[in-house]
Amino acid sequence: MAEIRPVRFGIIGCAEIARKMSRAMSLTPNATVSAIGSRRLEKAVKFAADNNLPASVKLYGSYEDVLDDPDVDAVYLPLPTSIHVRWAVLAAEKKKHVLLEKPVALHVTELDRILEACEANRVQFMDSTMWLHNPRTRIMRDILSDTERFGAIQSIHSSSSFSPPQEFFEKNIRVKPDLDALGALGDAGWYCISAILWAVDYRLPTTVTSLPAAKLNEDGVILTCGASLFWEDNKIATFYCSFLAHESMDLAVHGSHGALHVTDFIIPFVEDSASFTISSRAGLGVEDGMHLGWDKTPEEIRVELHIPQEALMVQEFAWLVGHIREGGEAPDKKWPEVSRKTQLVLDAVDKSIALGYKPVEL
Amino acid sequence: MAEIRPVRFGIIGCAEIARKMSRAMSLTPNATVSAIGSRRLEKAVKFAADNNLPASVKLYGSYEDVLDDPDVDAVYLPLPTSIHVRWAVLAAEKKKHVLLEKPVALHVTELDRILEACEANRVQFMDSTMWLHNPRTRIMRDILSDTERFGAIQSIHSSSSFSPPQEFFEKNIRVKPDLDALGALGDAGWYCISAILWAVDYRLPTTVTSLPAAKLNEDGVILTCGASLFWEDNKIATFYCSFLAHESMDLAVHGSHGALHVTDFIIPFVEDSASFTISSRAGLGVEDGMHLGWDKTPEEIRVELHIPQEALMVQEFAWLVGHIREGGEAPDKKWPEVSRKTQLVLDAVDKSIALGYKPVEL
Repeated sequence: MAEIRPVRFGIIGCAEIARKMSRAMSLTPNATVSAIGSRRLEKAVKFAADNNLPASVKLYGSYEDVLDDPDVDAVYLPLPTSIHVRWAVLAAEKKKHVLLEKPVALHVTELDRILEACEANRVQFMDSTMWLHNPRTRIMRDILSDTERFGAIQSIHSSSSFSPPQEFFEKNIRVKPDLDALGALGDAGWYCISAILWAVDYRLPTTVTSLPAAKLNEDGVILTCGASLFWEDNKIATFYCSFLAHESMDLAVHGSHGALHVTDFIIPFVEDSASFTISSRAGLGVEDGMHLGWDKTPEEIRVELHIPQEALMVQEFAWLVGHIREGGEAPDKKWPEVSRKTQLVLDAVDKSIALGYKPVEL
Repeated sequence: MAEIRPVRFGIIGCAEIARKMSRAMSLTPNATVSAIGSRRLEKAVKFAADNNLPASVKLYGSYEDVLDDPDVDAVYLPLPTSIHVRWAVLAAEKKKHVLLEKPVALHVTELDRILEACEANRVQFMDSTMWLHNPRTRIMRDILSDTERFGAIQSIHSSSSFSPPQEFFEKNIRVKPDLDALGALGDAGWYCISAILWAVDYRLPTTVTSLPAAKLNEDGVILTCGASLFWEDNKIATFYCSFLAHESMDLAVHGSHGALHVTDFIIPFVEDSASFTISSRAGLGVEDGMHLGWDKTPEEIRVELHIPQEALMVQEFAWLVGHIREGGEAPDKKWPEVSRKTQLVLDAVDKSIALGYKPVEL
């Protein structure tokens, strides 16, 4: 294949997270920022200045202008969830590849409209779940898949929470029913669900039951909730997500022969390395016929990163786009499926809460 | 108070765990092994030889003989759960203080008979949950109680599992309906429930709901199960216990201002030290307006032990017994209450499973 030129990104919306993503695009040889669009031109101008973007980056006072720019191959959409369907569908119709912030939609019916538009227009879709692109994730995946070392997964627990200042609960889009109606479930819970599904290699659970601990704000937006997921082979997963608890990003997976723990799976403690611990075929040691400790302690595995996980995500996305554009390949189907399954479980949790914590079959 | 002479223990039953406890008694200045009783004298003789017990230790071929020995102040009962009520009540009636293996009973009605007998006969009761006596536990307790450092507990997750060889499932008392009918719930689940109640300072949850993942053997003994516990202030706890998963002893507690993690809470990896990690008021760091990592990494706190946790448990028990015997004090009421609350939740989990995973109110 001929050398692939960098994918030119348009960023639509100047949310806080766009700053990190703009940097990620600059750290990836196969991507570049081509345009910034905001509803107000001043915001786009300020964003470009704050992020030291080169003068060649085009600045627009509307989202449409970015979509109409022939020098934009792909768009990154860090918009409130409620308007994802509108802008992602339009982007696809304008033949722009779509990198969409999570949660991708308020319901899978919305996501399906987006995915159908992407498929019909032969553009790549990926949601912006960064941790899936950390090299640590690949290494953990290999361990979980190792039947000798880890065995069959028996249980999974994940927690994602943070405790923002009071201002957040008054102003942030993530607690506004017209913007991000899924609240903590969509924001923090998305990660838990993504981690659980990732761990089981994206086999959907048969039953999802919310834990009786959902707390909603006065507008009905979820501030904290949890759920159990059950598979027919008796595997169980639980998760807890919250805007009211200390920062947490826990993932614990227990298999028949191994156990894996990570406590910073979403955003690693430090940017340039990431670790987890693994126990394999460990147990209580026997000394003079007594169990006085374990026969081995968990092993810490640390991975160095040359570029941060969000840059690796951009790189992967741009690589897929490049192959479609230059190689005539079809869009990859894995990432849309990952998003859709995550959304399906998220919807089931939401429905179970609405039903008073009744089980929801998938 | 005058110097307290060591509490003289009779060990009733030569289970594997008795070996560790016999050693613990030898490591504690205020305790000593005085007698061993087994249903067959040869077993008591072999136990004494295997454990290098001094010739002064009396060896009996019946449990009753230990209870009738005037040189026995207290008994340690590592017996199958189904016969706890019989022997613990009889021990109390013979004025012997009772250190009882967990799970203490098959149902709280049985435990209440034991506790009533202990109270009526002014003898100390304590169950043999060793980890509660590790100095690490006290330090973790202080952190969880620190409203500035940890804040209010929001969620707890615990896991206790091990994966024994096939022989266990055929022969071990812990999978026999006439001996330890609660199976993994009574054995491994006891620890999870004890940890959760300990974390919330023994406030009982209002609702207990089993997770839809209980697996029973053909005799109806639980091999794996889990549950959620819910408190009126919206706190939630989940746990998972299993005989079918890799060794695990996880406890994760999330508060409004802190998070605590320990992965060997039941039996520390090594005997002479124990650690946990604590995050307090940590969050995502801000660098150039971006979240590129955390503002601080969790702190590992390690505690050195001069004698193992089971010896500290024996020491505490013997200390209480000494104060009753020499100081005329009443038996301590905390430990019976700890056992009773643990049993109440355990019963609720068992009932919820029997009801097809319906919520059980406490």
